[in-house]
Amino acid sequence: MTQVAREVFGHDRVAALSGPSHAEEVGRRVPTAVVVASEDGALARHVQGLFTSERFRLYTSSDVAGVEFGGAFKNVIAVAVGVSDGLGFGDNTRAALITRGLVEITRLGCALGAREKTFAGLSGMGDLVVTCTSRHSRNRHVGEELGRGRKIEEILGAMKQAAEGAWNCRAVHALAQQHGIQAPIAAELHAILYEGKDPADAVRSLMTRDAKPE
Amino acid sequence: MTQVAREVFGHDRVAALSGPSHAEEVGRRVPTAVVVASEDGALARHVQGLFTSERFRLYTSSDVAGVEFGGAFKNVIAVAVGVSDGLGFGDNTRAALITRGLVEITRLGCALGAREKTFAGLSGMGDLVVTCTSRHSRNRHVGEELGRGRKIEEILGAMKQAAEGAWNCRAVHALAQQHGIQAPIAAELHAILYEGKDPADAVRSLMTRDAKPE
Repeated sequence: MTQVAREVFGHDRVAALSGPSHAEEVGRRVPTAVVVASEDGALARHVQGLFTSERFRLYTSSDVAGVEFGGAFKNVIAVAVGVSDGLGFGDNTRAALITRGLVEITRLGCALGAREKTFAGLSGMGDLVVTCTSRHSRNRHVGEELGRGRKIEEILGAMKQAAEGAWNCRAVHALAQQHGIQAPIAAELHAILYEGKDPADAVRSLMTRDAKPE
Repeated sequence: MTQVAREVFGHDRVAALSGPSHAEEVGRRVPTAVVVASEDGALARHVQGLFTSERFRLYTSSDVAGVEFGGAFKNVIAVAVGVSDGLGFGDNTRAALITRGLVEITRLGCALGAREKTFAGLSGMGDLVVTCTSRHSRNRHVGEELGRGRKIEEILGAMKQAAEGAWNCRAVHALAQQHGIQAPIAAELHAILYEGKDPADAVRSLMTRDAKPE
């Protein structure tokens, strides 16, 4: 989005604000913490000052690519978590998908020029956790319906709002292949979405990969 | 626990198995992924082989201290998340506490000789996420009651099961002070538990710390 903003506004003074921040909660003054990233450090600190309140805390970062990439890839993992829920799996499975999902996000993000630390922060892990555990996530809903055996065209056709995860999965899977990065959760979700793979078989593929160190 | 096991069994062939693994879900064959850590690499791989199944996936690690420390400190953050819930806050607040909580766990763990990577893994982030988002966590329950204004003696007196978090908080806070490590969430929880601080004031203190980079 900062690339788009640069083109549209015709200047480089852009910053990205991201993190676990459901808008309806921010509106209710629920304590919220986010990160504001810009290559221009003074701009990031300026935005930090503008928005800081007793209920809204901002950390600065210079890793714009990392902050933006985390916000996109997290939707893919949220769909995968939904598939697990739709198959009737539990909290253990969800936590494993979130944790190993963040490994994939970090690996691919770093190959694309982002910094590893960013993914351990609010725009990485924080946003991933809130998206994967909130009842209101549209991406999780898409995954749940997939897990129950419905097809993606049917699910998206019945929805009034956008669920980016299905599209993000295509982009992430292509980027991972292009850069030779292992992203097995994204690959299995891609197989469910676009190659007709049965969700239960995809789970089996993930659980029976070669034994390895963490 | 591996120190205790060493003393009791009188030999060094010990391993620690940890991660997001509610026992009742493992019993129902819900897909679960954990980490097994030992200084003895052959032993870790042996345990990995023993327990691996289509529904139980193990990763090996040599960072025993990191795996054990994550399992203890996570209880402190779970109590803090409960306080937030008891005060009526939302998913944003919880995600911020989990993310910034993991920063504290990692910082103190590394000062105690653990490896940073371990905390991004199943026994760190994974276990933290499952404990902080499960309805059944006893530590979260303790926090919720604190957030509603009850005192810790009263809460623990009414419980039949142990909730380690209140004890872990004392240990963690002491270790952080001893090693000169900033652990503001643990410090504020300590103030609520043992110094009579009002939970709403503790939240205010956390949200209004100096503005800083992530």
